[in-house]
Amino acid sequence: MMYKNKQFYLRARPDGVVTDKAVTQREQIIESLEDGEMLIENQFISIDPAIRGWMSDEPSYMSPIEIGSVIRSSTVGKVVESRHQDYQIGDMVYGLSGWETFSVSNGFFMNKIPENSPYPVNYYLSVMGAVGLTAYFAITDRSGLKPGETLLMSAAAGAVGSIGGQIAKLMGCRVVGLAGSEEKCNWVKHLGFDDVINYKETTDMTAAIEKACPEGVDVYFDNVGGEILDAALLNLNSHARVLFCGSIASYNATEPVPGPYNWWQILARSAEVRGFLVSDYLDRFPEAALTIGEWVDAGKIEFKEDVVKGFDNCVTAFNRLFDGSNNGKMLIQV
Amino acid sequence: MMYKNKQFYLRARPDGVVTDKAVTQREQIIESLEDGEMLIENQFISIDPAIRGWMSDEPSYMSPIEIGSVIRSSTVGKVVESRHQDYQIGDMVYGLSGWETFSVSNGFFMNKIPENSPYPVNYYLSVMGAVGLTAYFAITDRSGLKPGETLLMSAAAGAVGSIGGQIAKLMGCRVVGLAGSEEKCNWVKHLGFDDVINYKETTDMTAAIEKACPEGVDVYFDNVGGEILDAALLNLNSHARVLFCGSIASYNATEPVPGPYNWWQILARSAEVRGFLVSDYLDRFPEAALTIGEWVDAGKIEFKEDVVKGFDNCVTAFNRLFDGSNNGKMLIQV
Repeated sequence: MMYKNKQFYLRARPDGVVTDKAVTQREQIIESLEDGEMLIENQFISIDPAIRGWMSDEPSYMSPIEIGSVIRSSTVGKVVESRHQDYQIGDMVYGLSGWETFSVSNGFFMNKIPENSPYPVNYYLSVMGAVGLTAYFAITDRSGLKPGETLLMSAAAGAVGSIGGQIAKLMGCRVVGLAGSEEKCNWVKHLGFDDVINYKETTDMTAAIEKACPEGVDVYFDNVGGEILDAALLNLNSHARVLFCGSIASYNATEPVPGPYNWWQILARSAEVRGFLVSDYLDRFPEAALTIGEWVDAGKIEFKEDVVKGFDNCVTAFNRLFDGSNNGKMLIQV
Repeated sequence: MMYKNKQFYLRARPDGVVTDKAVTQREQIIESLEDGEMLIENQFISIDPAIRGWMSDEPSYMSPIEIGSVIRSSTVGKVVESRHQDYQIGDMVYGLSGWETFSVSNGFFMNKIPENSPYPVNYYLSVMGAVGLTAYFAITDRSGLKPGETLLMSAAAGAVGSIGGQIAKLMGCRVVGLAGSEEKCNWVKHLGFDDVINYKETTDMTAAIEKACPEGVDVYFDNVGGEILDAALLNLNSHARVLFCGSIASYNATEPVPGPYNWWQILARSAEVRGFLVSDYLDRFPEAALTIGEWVDAGKIEFKEDVVKGFDNCVTAFNRLFDGSNNGKMLIQV
């Protein structure tokens, strides 16, 4: 065997926006497998804001990507060689590997897609993958959201936000979204959100949220941090919850970014900030993916994928997550 | 009747440390009462960090003290005139009034001390008052602290911290305190804390907490904010709770103070920040005060009061809360 593998690897820790000084392409030849390994030809690669955190040398829920290592991400692919007893050539698999055209895997953090799966394989990186599961568990469990309450959703046109808001609507909540363009706002309204705020056209965020949430905010689902978080804090009801799921506004920062300036409001409103990690729910993934699949089949949940063709575009696609020019869950079709 | 009342009033909103530009003494003559009012001669006045927040014009859990109004605080006093049907001359009362030698009250937020109460009246401003009740409900309810877990207590020699730590010891927890002098540290050790860190002698707070909490921190009880909070966040266990009870490090700030720089750790550790307001537990105050009283009688809880004699010393005593030179619950004996 002999496979030419293209990969993006971490050459240096990025300072701000990722450039080819930090993440560079290289080629390697894969000539053999060890016993217990398989070779996967990747078809789709997941491009996620969280990967920016893994590139930094900060303590977090996963160890940082090591210098010289391939960029870590989820992928979907087909087994093309196997010395692993549980996997055959032709099996479709999804799991944690990296920004590369081929991955050698011993099966760790890898799952088979059922042969009779009715869903396109890329769903396993979007609505039925980490993104959909994050929305599902964050809304149905960690947020403590109850029917009739008001949910304020940041990045509402984004992958997690759009799915999370629809789940909250299914639960019988008032759902208000935040998005950064007219096109995105229209999409969010189309999904059934009760109201949407174009934050790029809004000068007084605090007042805009107050207007859209006349009974206050019971749960603020925070994917972004920054000024929107500060404005949300000023609109929290007593005993509200801030679901802390991401902080995209600070991922490319070159200076340390503090917590919100309206930090005091957490005390003043007996509120809570709850950190959310989807990995806490690992044992419930199959059940949840099934539920989400049924919602998609029934037309209760819609979602968008922003599929960029061509492996070489990984970094370009990745950076679009941070200027807001992506349009749905970002995937690379290899 | 004619009573000369001395009071400290809010002349202007303070910028930083409170001086007589912001809080000034004045005299007024009280000549008569309306129907339903009583006149209380104050014996003890409570001096609390939270009062600094009420002097600022920021949204909070209570409206700001208005310019020209007496400084709001808890007091204990004796009824010396009464046109209120529920109160007789000679009754001892405690409740919310202000930094003044006499208070006119219609009974709102005022309670009678039982005639047969075995406790010194000043206890109703300390261990059996808001301070003790804060420690009690924060530890036994809001923190979710469980036996065997590790509690890290800020301002451990302070009024809330010293009582809270002792309650956690009664629950069977490992309790580590933070205090700012050798004398305070000795007091904290005397109270039965498992370990104590002198933060003024510590250059690397994160490492010091790690050493004192080898199994990590399950609950960090935050009265202070600032750098200690940031160091605590780096030592939280998965699903730890930060009980947000105060932020004394920022009360005198002249610029906006942001939340912690290690904000991300809340997500990375699936942790929670829980705002705490003792007023959420109003209906359980009598039950809790009884329990605390029993603990004090049984010698299970010790506490210190720092009683400063002389009404004129209100502001001086108040400012000692912020340089750490107080030694226990600060009270003015009028």
